[in-house]
Amino acid sequence: MTTLVIGANGQIGHQFCALAAQAGLPIKAMIRNEDQRAWFAERGIDAVIADLEGDFRHAFEGCDQVLFTAGSGPHTGSDKTLLIDLYAATRAIDVSRELGIKRFLMVSALRAENPQEAPEKLRPYMAAKFSADAYLRASNVPYLILKPGRLIDEPATQRVATSLAETGGENTVSRANVAHALVHLVQAEDLTGREFHLLDGERGIAEALR
Amino acid sequence: MTTLVIGANGQIGHQFCALAAQAGLPIKAMIRNEDQRAWFAERGIDAVIADLEGDFRHAFEGCDQVLFTAGSGPHTGSDKTLLIDLYAATRAIDVSRELGIKRFLMVSALRAENPQEAPEKLRPYMAAKFSADAYLRASNVPYLILKPGRLIDEPATQRVATSLAETGGENTVSRANVAHALVHLVQAEDLTGREFHLLDGERGIAEALR
Repeated sequence: MTTLVIGANGQIGHQFCALAAQAGLPIKAMIRNEDQRAWFAERGIDAVIADLEGDFRHAFEGCDQVLFTAGSGPHTGSDKTLLIDLYAATRAIDVSRELGIKRFLMVSALRAENPQEAPEKLRPYMAAKFSADAYLRASNVPYLILKPGRLIDEPATQRVATSLAETGGENTVSRANVAHALVHLVQAEDLTGREFHLLDGERGIAEALR
Repeated sequence: MTTLVIGANGQIGHQFCALAAQAGLPIKAMIRNEDQRAWFAERGIDAVIADLEGDFRHAFEGCDQVLFTAGSGPHTGSDKTLLIDLYAATRAIDVSRELGIKRFLMVSALRAENPQEAPEKLRPYMAAKFSADAYLRASNVPYLILKPGRLIDEPATQRVATSLAETGGENTVSRANVAHALVHLVQAEDLTGREFHLLDGERGIAEALR
């Protein structure tokens, strides 16, 4: 299955693409402009230029599944949160349904399930993720939703947990571990309709996410 | 059917409640605080205090249908758009489903169907309305969605149109006409699963919205 990576130029996107290229997985990186192409070309990764806020349907050509890891992040303005995390996601889901995409992998967030439990300043962002996830569930597109905890920049341990109970409340996960988890999930072709929390922990990824 | 009015203290909310009270329709106004109660009490309207960003489930007691006309409007910050227009709406829909509410009337917006066609500064707002509407459609709660054009403050004509083709592209509608349309819709109990554009026009409301 060839995977279209939406948000390929983001932090998790870069790490995922690098790992996927090393592993020889067929991916296509969706990027915003020509300036971003060199990083992918150096790693032998096919890239397509498309505008997430405009026309991006052509990017799906030749792709079987979609990984949506685009995001303005919780610290940009809520305008962008509405346009990217919410609306671009819903349009990508619509295009996936129209084109018969086999599976849509959404990178969501731990607190997206219950935005009211999130710290106040994160609530608008979590509300957008909540609704994008809900739209995906209702879409009839086969899906997986990965909900990482608070993202940190630490080296990959490739050891994870899938609940706060398991970590004693520790809510962080490295972007590197998220990238490794995504490399596992894009290859676990039979897994659909599932949602996983993801935290740094003690278990192997393949054992934790199945 | 008793109608819970969420957003009763807004501009359309006030006009709707006044008309509904005059017509003797059973309504319950959901308001934010005690200061807002006098306006409703003067008109003999039952009011309940509840926090749209917090706990509001108790407000539904004794109500059969819900009118959601709460909204930060397109000109407040996108944080509030995410928390009210999007997330409070989705939670109200969830509560409606859980409690077996008979119908949910959503006040949406003309451009919510296709936010990309909206003027750029309105797009984030329209994206929120788009997703709230989509959530409602997928909810299994019987619904109506009313999509007014650009709201203006003019007296009620009680003459409307339901498409831009019909108005020759004129995209405005008075809040007063929206309030009259809502008074019609809350009483049209058999109407569900329908979505109406609403503009100022030439037709009677009952004939246009059926």
